[in-house]
Amino acid sequence: MRVKRFDDVPEREVEVEGARGVRIRVLISPGDGAPNFVMRMFTIQPGGCTPYHTHSWEHEVFVLSGSGEARQGEKTYPLEKGSVVLVLPWEEHNFRNTGDEPLVFLCSIPIVEDGSG
Amino acid sequence: MRVKRFDDVPEREVEVEGARGVRIRVLISPGDGAPNFVMRMFTIQPGGCTPYHTHSWEHEVFVLSGSGEARQGEKTYPLEKGSVVLVLPWEEHNFRNTGDEPLVFLCSIPIVEDGSG
Repeated sequence: MRVKRFDDVPEREVEVEGARGVRIRVLISPGDGAPNFVMRMFTIQPGGCTPYHTHSWEHEVFVLSGSGEARQGEKTYPLEKGSVVLVLPWEEHNFRNTGDEPLVFLCSIPIVEDGSG
Repeated sequence: MRVKRFDDVPEREVEVEGARGVRIRVLISPGDGAPNFVMRMFTIQPGGCTPYHTHSWEHEVFVLSGSGEARQGEKTYPLEKGSVVLVLPWEEHNFRNTGDEPLVFLCSIPIVEDGSG
């Protein structure tokens, strides 16, 4: 059993193209012994967003604080504390902070070679 | 993309032996199209606990509110808002609410035939 606090984990800027004001903490990873999936925490500053993109792995998201929206094509869905989002493999998507406070959410993904998005 | 609120999902009592004052919401499951893992939310009432048990799958846990402890053998670890726990496959474990408020946490598991614990 491994127990830590989210803020024991270093936070780093997400530097992929299309990301603006996004920071990530990888809370649980293969380095901890996780065999199947990875838990990450994202913090998006007001006005910031993740890249609008697609990839072969799913996202399972839980919003911890702040407000924003998830977009898929022409559809947008409001996000608030307690929102739950499933992005399926190969669905285009992004997340945007539309509020005045940081938008903070957990986003778990299966273990993949390039799970940066 | 599927978007909902946690409280759109029905909550039910966990009735396995050894569980006391524990309720579960299955937030994201294969029924939503999830291909690899399942996101559940547990609420443990003050004085309640999950069964002390073991199984072949891991837990990835994030504590949303309340306080309590995670136990593995003779070791106990305090839990509070923002605690992160990885329980590896076949590690004995349970979670206990030692506070005065409900202990609420997310607990994701891989898709398994009997993922009730």
